Amino acid sequence: MASDVTAPRGMRDFLPADKARRERVLGVIRESYRRHGFDEIETPVMEDSARLHAGLGGDNEKLAFGVLKRGLTVEDLRAAREPLDLVDLGLRFDLTVPLARFYATHRAELPSVFRAIQIAPVWRAERPQRGRFRQFVQCDIDIIGEPGPLAEVELIAATADALDALGLAGCAIRINDRRILAALVRSWGIADADYESTLVTVDKLDKVGVDGVVAELSAKGLGDAERVGGTLRAIAELPDDGWALASDPPAWLDVAVYRELLAIREALPGIRLVFSPDLVRGMGYYTGTIFEIAHPDVPYSLGGGGRYDGMIGRFLGTDVPAVGFSLGFERILELVEAAAGERADAVALVYDDGAAPARLVALKRQLVQTGARVRLVRRARRVAAQLDQLAAEGFTRFAFVPDGASTAAELEFRELAPPA
Amino acid sequence: MASDVTAPRGMRDFLPADKARRERVLGVIRESYRRHGFDEIETPVMEDSARLHAGLGGDNEKLAFGVLKRGLTVEDLRAAREPLDLVDLGLRFDLTVPLARFYATHRAELPSVFRAIQIAPVWRAERPQRGRFRQFVQCDIDIIGEPGPLAEVELIAATADALDALGLAGCAIRINDRRILAALVRSWGIADADYESTLVTVDKLDKVGVDGVVAELSAKGLGDAERVGGTLRAIAELPDDGWALASDPPAWLDVAVYRELLAIREALPGIRLVFSPDLVRGMGYYTGTIFEIAHPDVPYSLGGGGRYDGMIGRFLGTDVPAVGFSLGFERILELVEAAAGERADAVALVYDDGAAPARLVALKRQLVQTGARVRLVRRARRVAAQLDQLAAEGFTRFAFVPDGASTAAELEFRELAPPA
Repeated sequence: MASDVTAPRGMRDFLPADKARRERVLGVIRESYRRHGFDEIETPVMEDSARLHAGLGGDNEKLAFGVLKRGLTVEDLRAAREPLDLVDLGLRFDLTVPLARFYATHRAELPSVFRAIQIAPVWRAERPQRGRFRQFVQCDIDIIGEPGPLAEVELIAATADALDALGLAGCAIRINDRRILAALVRSWGIADADYESTLVTVDKLDKVGVDGVVAELSAKGLGDAERVGGTLRAIAELPDDGWALASDPPAWLDVAVYRELLAIREALPGIRLVFSPDLVRGMGYYTGTIFEIAHPDVPYSLGGGGRYDGMIGRFLGTDVPAVGFSLGFERILELVEAAAGERADAVALVYDDGAAPARLVALKRQLVQTGARVRLVRRARRVAAQLDQLAAEGFTRFAFVPDGASTAAELEFRELAPPA
Repeated sequence: MASDVTAPRGMRDFLPADKARRERVLGVIRESYRRHGFDEIETPVMEDSARLHAGLGGDNEKLAFGVLKRGLTVEDLRAAREPLDLVDLGLRFDLTVPLARFYATHRAELPSVFRAIQIAPVWRAERPQRGRFRQFVQCDIDIIGEPGPLAEVELIAATADALDALGLAGCAIRINDRRILAALVRSWGIADADYESTLVTVDKLDKVGVDGVVAELSAKGLGDAERVGGTLRAIAELPDDGWALASDPPAWLDVAVYRELLAIREALPGIRLVFSPDLVRGMGYYTGTIFEIAHPDVPYSLGGGGRYDGMIGRFLGTDVPAVGFSLGFERILELVEAAAGERADAVALVYDDGAAPARLVALKRQLVQTGARVRLVRRARRVAAQLDQLAAEGFTRFAFVPDGASTAAELEFRELAPPA
């Protein structure tokens, strides 16, 4: 019977050691972002369904979990023409749509340039499959109200610092701009009407390679195969991380926008930026810079973001410039060393059956008042294994509670060696 | 247009100051519980619908938000006989049902006596009304696997310490036992079959008073009105917080259970326990002790809990003793002094339009590396008001960025006075 009882498919429980590790890593990220002048906010996990389905979430929008209206009747079922008719709320699929809604709601109470931290779960009704979770945590920072590149520079600096603080050496930030992509697509002789469709294909470059992209575009009847292949191959081989193009720019490059990216790079000495003119990022709402974190050990990105100047206007009625950077927390967690928690004073009081609760709790409370973490543990038959387990859980010392002891001074403490 | 854009009804956004205050208070509670040897865990926000609707959640079960199945079609709508047919998941309405499910799933990986912390949101599809939220945070501690009163004593000690750490002086813990309630109801000449119905009425005592309870029971045809009224009035006037009954016990009192409560009280010197034989607690799953936090300034409880020895067996197939204590975080938050956040070093760099992003971010990064929190702020027309606002947000010093400054050493810092 017990084997049936599990968390819902695609969702996870976190046991004490997992939970502590997750919170430690989130704490490092949060503190890094706070230092860079960002402020944490929180929104409800649900948004009104009409807002979630406003066409801003791209493919993720289709993965929003719908929440049934309150007090539905069988008659409502009969009258419904499609499942969404029964739904008035949905679980957020990202933190960007809720942030845009939040900003539209609270603009008057927020500083003119608002730097937001959001560290929170999101939900996607993915088909269950290995390594895809239906509930996972995102860590987003966004700057709203700053039209210039200062926002990009601050976001990237804060993100790079967070990655450093996590000990993730060797990360690079790939950067591009949607306006560079638009010029690139035009240089292939593709009409603006086919721009979105072209991006969908180019976005598969990491998976299918240059030949795959050329073949798919040809199959769609888009662009000259030779020109597309030549450009993409040249891009893959750009020297100096792509930053040597200004003096002799290739035909496909929007040089004015490239110079803006160069200025961002120059404002961030010590952080490795890679110009990636073939970087797409899936979301339709990006309007300018886009970026992504690459790590040498893994083939997928550890996070990304970009400028989405038109999105808040969809809720507010007035366009407000905005740019954000999201960390893929679950992927980052896998790469971060399983740093041991700080070994604060943690005491196990091992007692025998029959010890009076009043005496045990009196001892415990005395020790808690000294600032220690204290756990009462009934003595197991295999005490050595029990003590090893306590050490593994981070306990630093223990005492057997002797008969009749009623003050902590009567206890003899012994150290627990940290696990090898 | 903007005025329409709000969080979903009954749910709240938290702006930076609110969010920081909530996290500070949660941090105090979490640290208190950790010191007392409890470990934090996390479960998904959703559980399988069948588990949520297993009859363990009492009235709250009816308030579970249902989540629509993935990929529903119009045919599914037509075939459904009731709204729940379309639902395979639901948002948790409390943290106890998920904990019981979690324990059943992971029992083999957990210590034989498991002390859990859960600090997390829950959802209830309440009819929207003032002061009732549809998403709110609960803080639960539970001890699973300990049949004796040591569990109750540890839970109450940890809770009392958390309340102390929050500065909530004057709290009392009301305590009762479901077995005492059962004897009480029997003493009124009410059949066991009418026990639940009787409790529903007695549970209204705080709202309708003794006369109201007597009237409602009479209307139900339950019990002798005079006996019920006499007992309830006697209970309301018990001397010595109810702890003087052992030598000359009234007829309605289950003396053996009362002596168990006396022992719990004696194990907790310095904590005010009040024996409240008319305390019911709404949930049907309680099997033994029940308790509730009373605070002199408010008419409602700040939290409560009790023993629910039968519940885990519903998932596991084997009964495991369990007892829990839940803090009503939202109510507690209203009572906790708006303690100022720690004033850590927080620096505002005030710059003029036209300053180069590269220079600004270089200065910022130098200061961040010293451990400060740093925010770049464009100089406003009314600088004095701007500085006041920064002080109110917790910034401790500021500097105007002079033309051409590129190292922090060139900045002249001035203190920001904390807001009065």
